Amino acid sequence: MKPVNVSEYEALAQPKIEAGAWDFYQGGSDDEVTLRANRSAFERIRLRPRVLVDVSSITMQTSVLGIPLAMPIMVAPTSSHCVAYPEGECATARGVGMAGSLMIASCVSTRTLEDIAEEAHTVQCPLFFQLYVFNDMQITEGLVRRAEQAGYRAIVLTVDTPRLGRRERDLRNNVIIPPLPHRAANFADGHPLFRPVLTWEMLSWLRDITSLPILLKGILTAEDALLAVQHGVDGIIVSNHGGRQLDGGLASIEALPEVVEAVEGRCEVYVDGGIRRGTDVLKALALGARAVLIGRPVLWGLAVDGSEGVRDILGLLRAELELAMALSGRPTLASIDRSLVKLP
Amino acid sequence: MKPVNVSEYEALAQPKIEAGAWDFYQGGSDDEVTLRANRSAFERIRLRPRVLVDVSSITMQTSVLGIPLAMPIMVAPTSSHCVAYPEGECATARGVGMAGSLMIASCVSTRTLEDIAEEAHTVQCPLFFQLYVFNDMQITEGLVRRAEQAGYRAIVLTVDTPRLGRRERDLRNNVIIPPLPHRAANFADGHPLFRPVLTWEMLSWLRDITSLPILLKGILTAEDALLAVQHGVDGIIVSNHGGRQLDGGLASIEALPEVVEAVEGRCEVYVDGGIRRGTDVLKALALGARAVLIGRPVLWGLAVDGSEGVRDILGLLRAELELAMALSGRPTLASIDRSLVKLP
Amino acid sequence: MKPVNVSEYEALAQPKIEAGAWDFYQGGSDDEVTLRANRSAFERIRLRPRVLVDVSSITMQTSVLGIPLAMPIMVAPTSSHCVAYPEGECATARGVGMAGSLMIASCVSTRTLEDIAEEAHTVQCPLFFQLYVFNDMQITEGLVRRAEQAGYRAIVLTVDTPRLGRRERDLRNNVIIPPLPHRAANFADGHPLFRPVLTWEMLSWLRDITSLPILLKGILTAEDALLAVQHGVDGIIVSNHGGRQLDGGLASIEALPEVVEAVEGRCEVYVDGGIRRGTDVLKALALGARAVLIGRPVLWGLAVDGSEGVRDILGLLRAELELAMALSGRPTLASIDRSLVKLP
Amino acid sequence: MKPVNVSEYEALAQPKIEAGAWDFYQGGSDDEVTLRANRSAFERIRLRPRVLVDVSSITMQTSVLGIPLAMPIMVAPTSSHCVAYPEGECATARGVGMAGSLMIASCVSTRTLEDIAEEAHTVQCPLFFQLYVFNDMQITEGLVRRAEQAGYRAIVLTVDTPRLGRRERDLRNNVIIPPLPHRAANFADGHPLFRPVLTWEMLSWLRDITSLPILLKGILTAEDALLAVQHGVDGIIVSNHGGRQLDGGLASIEALPEVVEAVEGRCEVYVDGGIRRGTDVLKALALGARAVLIGRPVLWGLAVDGSEGVRDILGLLRAELELAMALSGRPTLASIDRSLVKLP
Repeated sequence: MKPVNVSEYEALAQPKIEAGAWDFYQGGSDDEVTLRANRSAFERIRLRPRVLVDVSSITMQTSVLGIPLAMPIMVAPTSSHCVAYPEGECATARGVGMAGSLMIASCVSTRTLEDIAEEAHTVQCPLFFQLYVFNDMQITEGLVRRAEQAGYRAIVLTVDTPRLGRRERDLRNNVIIPPLPHRAANFADGHPLFRPVLTWEMLSWLRDITSLPILLKGILTAEDALLAVQHGVDGIIVSNHGGRQLDGGLASIEALPEVVEAVEGRCEVYVDGGIRRGTDVLKALALGARAVLIGRPVLWGLAVDGSEGVRDILGLLRAELELAMALSGRPTLASIDRSLVKLP
Repeated sequence: MKPVNVSEYEALAQPKIEAGAWDFYQGGSDDEVTLRANRSAFERIRLRPRVLVDVSSITMQTSVLGIPLAMPIMVAPTSSHCVAYPEGECATARGVGMAGSLMIASCVSTRTLEDIAEEAHTVQCPLFFQLYVFNDMQITEGLVRRAEQAGYRAIVLTVDTPRLGRRERDLRNNVIIPPLPHRAANFADGHPLFRPVLTWEMLSWLRDITSLPILLKGILTAEDALLAVQHGVDGIIVSNHGGRQLDGGLASIEALPEVVEAVEGRCEVYVDGGIRRGTDVLKALALGARAVLIGRPVLWGLAVDGSEGVRDILGLLRAELELAMALSGRPTLASIDRSLVKLP
Repeated sequence: MKPVNVSEYEALAQPKIEAGAWDFYQGGSDDEVTLRANRSAFERIRLRPRVLVDVSSITMQTSVLGIPLAMPIMVAPTSSHCVAYPEGECATARGVGMAGSLMIASCVSTRTLEDIAEEAHTVQCPLFFQLYVFNDMQITEGLVRRAEQAGYRAIVLTVDTPRLGRRERDLRNNVIIPPLPHRAANFADGHPLFRPVLTWEMLSWLRDITSLPILLKGILTAEDALLAVQHGVDGIIVSNHGGRQLDGGLASIEALPEVVEAVEGRCEVYVDGGIRRGTDVLKALALGARAVLIGRPVLWGLAVDGSEGVRDILGLLRAELELAMALSGRPTLASIDRSLVKLP
Repeated sequence: MKPVNVSEYEALAQPKIEAGAWDFYQGGSDDEVTLRANRSAFERIRLRPRVLVDVSSITMQTSVLGIPLAMPIMVAPTSSHCVAYPEGECATARGVGMAGSLMIASCVSTRTLEDIAEEAHTVQCPLFFQLYVFNDMQITEGLVRRAEQAGYRAIVLTVDTPRLGRRERDLRNNVIIPPLPHRAANFADGHPLFRPVLTWEMLSWLRDITSLPILLKGILTAEDALLAVQHGVDGIIVSNHGGRQLDGGLASIEALPEVVEAVEGRCEVYVDGGIRRGTDVLKALALGARAVLIGRPVLWGLAVDGSEGVRDILGLLRAELELAMALSGRPTLASIDRSLVKLP
């Protein structure tokens, strides 16, 4: 029988992935307090449904940076897809495209950005390119240039990883991700070193070398959201990196309201972290997100059934969101507003 | 030994009902967050009992839309009673009538509305008719006409079901409810299609075709309560459909205060969802409900002992309510006010 | 080894008491929500200890209605002591007297009030008499007269029991308490009927027939506390009858602050329900109680070791309170004020 | 494999320590409510990380009373180190010194204060001397004089122990700590009696007899913090003695804000209790602590691997703090302010 929800995919995926890699995917940092908070924070938010609204037609087409999407759900950058499925990120892109969503490819993917783009092209899957800044700025700039040439539509600069969080499952498992022979495919000689200094000035540098829109991923406070707007970013992804960086940090859905309030519509705001249900998407939209990103569920779908699994994960969430919009009397994205939620 | 409370009936009923049907009765949508919240929200409300009040005589006779009832407890519309007990809704009506309560018959009952009415007549059980609006408006109007002719006293329009909630237990069980040979008895050719558009205009149509009082079932917000009043409804049932529609929605007892406040006495307000104790009824009354509705417990009583079980369930709740009124120093319904409860 | 705390007495007592009687002692009404709340409400209150106070000498001598007590801890009225220990309430009184505390004897005791008084006299144990009002007012008055003659110092009128709470453990066990041959010793012909009407007027009647001080036991609201003061009572016992009457009612320690505030010192205020530690006593005193009452722990002590067990229970609580006063920098009862507690 | 965090040391330490001594180390008073609250209070505080800050260089060098420390983490006074490791407090001092931290030696240590100082000298470990006041003031003064001569840099007067808390694990285990032959080494003839009166006047006496800075350990309220400032103390350690004194008292991290607010910078404020992670240290610093103290984890490290274990415990916390500072965008202690935390 086909899985009826995202959690069933999780259960099916586990036996398909080697234990250490599974821990790498599933784990968070330290005591995984924030990992769990990402879920529990959603569960404490209550929906206030309206009735007798004409919901015969539900529309959730939207756009992100002007790019049309079939649904306000995108795919977050995650690494090491080849560990879950042989074709790796290429299979993911195919599934995302078939679902009408958008994929943010990780710069440490196990397939090259060009391979991913080529596959994405066949299914008209729009792509963003997630960027870490490396010590060697030529490598960094090279990645941006390659992304431009391959047709990526925006650069997503991850700002919450000046260092890697302490993921103790990996320390105990002595995990190297990706395991050989799945190296970080974008680099000729393995993984280059992260740049030890990443500041707002880097944003100016990035702005100078590319005309692509720039998104910042990993903002959790009103203060930084305001700075991002002042630095002219095109979008903010409210994120705690899936609970994998600072443990004890805010759940991302907890941080969303203050970011939205600070931004005042001057750039687009998205959120990731703990989204497992269409009602989670609905809550995020009601709190001001233009779209959400999902991470681990995509890997579960990929592991279970390759691109079909990815498509199905997105299809499940889309169907759940559509139903949730109908049952809450919000047939359009425009009708989803703050009055739909009651915070704890 | 006779069950001492409603929960004991639940335990006794389970082995009498086929597993898939049991899941259908018991389950909620998605993760069943709202299903559980319906209970836990009651448990967080504290009662503030008064003492040295003359409670030698407790009176709980009331009326709903002018119809006298022995207690402020009615029976919510639920489907498929024949699955729990051979005589189905007819047995239920007999038990409800013997208990002095009122039954809202589901329009997708497994006995015809006329059969139910005939049985109800023998025990003077007042009946309301729950209505879904079907694609074929002639079918819809036909149901209303038949209900009028059969002596139903009000139409209860369910407004929270523009689509069915996603009840994953049923998806996993591959349940068809009612199982053959228990079809939806009111329809010659099985179950007609629900109407894809149900709006406030439908209320005008309904008002035009019948002079019966109209209740809306499934309102959870002050905004919709106000609209209902403005559209001239006779009553509002605050309900989340037993946690079977929008998961993550407000617990119904959480939503009751804002509805009562918005209505300002301009129509009657009732509530269902999670009521398992006389003290739950008391809390709902204190928060402004004129009466409560119970759903699943009636099915448990029906499964265990047919009409006698139904009567006993209502008798247990009535006895518990009577005791709770005595122990809280509120011998009359009029003496039950907001000062009786402390919200969390 | 001697029990180190009250909970160890509980564990030791259970095997000494027949299962049905144990359930009768331990149980509460309905779902026992209030029974549990009585404990959990204490655990949520935090103490704010002061330091560098001279606590070399801790004094906790106090008085209740002018009667000197060695500690601000009294013994609540409970029934059926002969079930726990052959000598019943007489053994209890001896233990209470040896501990320097005060006993409120239940009017449905299994030893006569005169027997209890005689035993209490030998150890100078002050006694109050708990009164239920019976249908036959001559019986009621007779009890008061006998209590006066036997040297009881106050009448404690229980006001929260116009009917018995629904204790489902007892219903399931089919318990008759006290079991034969332990009848309610104060009555020649078994247990007379409770009076179906008990109102504030009854207080005037009681005031007229006796010059003993009158306490009301079972008040949980500011409203009733104010009425009690207006009716000239000498003391109020904030109580929910150990969670045995209205389930879902306020925990007694939750109700204490509003009662204390309403009373404004015009009569004494005590509290019972869930007190198992010296720090619980301290919290109650900080919230304005003049003294606390303990119920079930006394029965545990009685079952384990007769009067010695009762004395030891009171001794343990006294020692814990003394230590808690020292560790919180409050060497006298006068120094225990509201600033000692932080409410949740 | 080396332990990856402090909790793994805890698990490794248990089999190395005799059961009764383990209970003595791990346990708290009464029901251990405060012991658990020390941890859970940290878990409820959320961090608000900033991004795109230059965190290439993290500096956490600080000073306590002008003494330079490599990190804002000190070692709290705990007793009986010889029970965990043969060399006892000398091994601890060596590990603390190697880690660049500071040790507060307990006055009831199992090695003499002179031995500890001699060992500490070899690794340049700064020492404070924790003082209980004994009945015989000559003994007390003698200890201060010896601490001065041995090079201790401050006196830490414990103010929350006018009596020992009731540690029921020890009562049940019938524990004598330290077990023979590990006596309290600073005293020729075993353990002298604690002074039954310890008040603010004692502070004047202590001030008169020594020119060493004086810290008070065990303050939990704004009221006492203000008194401490008025009495001219050099520092305050917000502490509930690891949950070993007044059970039900405030968690120390809960008490920190009111102490910091009352002190207004007029003396240094530190905190101990429940710190097991670098993020805990960060939260304490954000709430105004100049440094934190750790107790039990040091004993775990000592039991597992002597001075190396102690050094590693401090190294783990230091590394975690460094990472937490980087991931929260606070590269210096000065940049850690109140905006970093969101209280529950």
